Amino acid sequence: MLEICFLGTGAMMPLPDRKLAALLLRRGGRLLLMDCGEGTQVAIRQCGWSLARIDTICFTHFHADHIAGLPGLLLTMGACDRTEPVTLVGPAGLKSVVRGLRVIAPELPYELRFKELTRREQTFPFHDIQVTAFPLDHLMPCYGFSLSLARPGRFDPNRAKALGLPVIHWRELQNGKAVTLDGNTYTPDQVLGPPRKGIKLAYCTDTRATGVIAIHGREADLLICEGTYGEDEKADKAAEYGHMTFSQAANLAKRADARELLLTHFSPSMRDPQEHIEMAQAIFPNTNTAHDLLCRTLLFEED
Amino acid sequence: MLEICFLGTGAMMPLPDRKLAALLLRRGGRLLLMDCGEGTQVAIRQCGWSLARIDTICFTHFHADHIAGLPGLLLTMGACDRTEPVTLVGPAGLKSVVRGLRVIAPELPYELRFKELTRREQTFPFHDIQVTAFPLDHLMPCYGFSLSLARPGRFDPNRAKALGLPVIHWRELQNGKAVTLDGNTYTPDQVLGPPRKGIKLAYCTDTRATGVIAIHGREADLLICEGTYGEDEKADKAAEYGHMTFSQAANLAKRADARELLLTHFSPSMRDPQEHIEMAQAIFPNTNTAHDLLCRTLLFEED
Repeated sequence: MLEICFLGTGAMMPLPDRKLAALLLRRGGRLLLMDCGEGTQVAIRQCGWSLARIDTICFTHFHADHIAGLPGLLLTMGACDRTEPVTLVGPAGLKSVVRGLRVIAPELPYELRFKELTRREQTFPFHDIQVTAFPLDHLMPCYGFSLSLARPGRFDPNRAKALGLPVIHWRELQNGKAVTLDGNTYTPDQVLGPPRKGIKLAYCTDTRATGVIAIHGREADLLICEGTYGEDEKADKAAEYGHMTFSQAANLAKRADARELLLTHFSPSMRDPQEHIEMAQAIFPNTNTAHDLLCRTLLFEED
Repeated sequence: MLEICFLGTGAMMPLPDRKLAALLLRRGGRLLLMDCGEGTQVAIRQCGWSLARIDTICFTHFHADHIAGLPGLLLTMGACDRTEPVTLVGPAGLKSVVRGLRVIAPELPYELRFKELTRREQTFPFHDIQVTAFPLDHLMPCYGFSLSLARPGRFDPNRAKALGLPVIHWRELQNGKAVTLDGNTYTPDQVLGPPRKGIKLAYCTDTRATGVIAIHGREADLLICEGTYGEDEKADKAAEYGHMTFSQAANLAKRADARELLLTHFSPSMRDPQEHIEMAQAIFPNTNTAHDLLCRTLLFEED
């Protein structure tokens, strides 16, 4: 199970009913935050998940609408008794940007660790999730992130019994750990069936339409894409400012063979994203628009 | 006439129903902003006054809850076609703090001008208002601001007629300008009565209880004071963190002989400031608590 909550779905400037880009993910009680626009800490309070449990904050890029909420959030996490280190992930230059912003948040009761994305593609773990950062096509260096949660094969009690393994050791093997008994080592592959379908999510903003989204969003259960502009006629404007239209995102979801496309990062000029959804659904039927505080629970498939 | 709007009345961290410290003042269509916590730009939209008309932003001090909203606000003012310079006023170090924060707002379509407060007391004009900055007693250098709007004496048409001044020149003299006719110069004092009572407002946050508030808030029509803590028993805690209780603020308003005391800058632990108002009103009866988006219009007295 992987839970997500859209903290903000707006681009450029916050509106009274639409905060700026930020997405919160929860897995096993630990939180990962994607982007942190102004107002993010208030949205986290509204969503009700614990600020102090944020272990990792990933930044797609350094435009203010994706990072201006950082100093306030870091201070509030400190005030909420966070003491464990927090890892910040983002494009090259991350340390220097954060150093600038911390002029108003110089003292924190926990350590900040930095992971600057210097390679074209970079993978790192969050909890038991594999996160892959890949370059998008924006006005400045910008990364998309795909998150893959693997699911081991089904445990076969008959095979465990045949091996003579006491029930007390079954859970360790189920959890992927080897067990040594009387000099014999038993490995999970001896008692598990073939790996089952996991959960995959991709988060792509800000970007022009680029094939890399179809590659990294391949068969994603949920492809979250920016749709800064609704109308097809705004494709030129979108390209000029490094963004996409709804239709462009829908075409990429179709190429990726994703399960669902959720659009976000709406221009402040777009009052109601739902007005433009039909155009995208004509291309990729399972397209929906996100809104602030929309939460989703991604579950493993029934066997 | 001077209009004000409380954009945020919270301390330390924003809450869903209480933004951080910021007060907007409007005079003659021009705006002055006092402090700019995270979320200020959204509050300005909610209040409905034009972001692009902010000429001056004063900072009391550099704690994040008073300045973290600056980069986002500056960018949005640019996006709203601001091209005239904006003056930033604040304690020594202002330029360096703003330089740090502008790492995410490097390009603006208007000039930023800086006025660093280096003297103990410093006066500068905003429109036809005289603004005085004076030092408060906080954990870091922090300034209060008093604003005085003078009101000239009443125009006396009989004296103007006696001087033989044509009606066409009366307005210039009313507006404080001298008029030269046939080699004779006429000055406003020749046609105006004695100066009338103006409008005075003082804004004091963050600070311990200090006599300077009673001095600079002397006979203010509106004294805006921090009241971070409600209960008298929290006076020690307030002093430790550089703040005041409601009662301390009320005592200062009494000493200042102010017309009204409006409390703001409430601790996130104080859910309803109204719960503590009676204690303050027992000391200074015309005490009220501010809340987000509270607007007030300060008018000249009837003659």
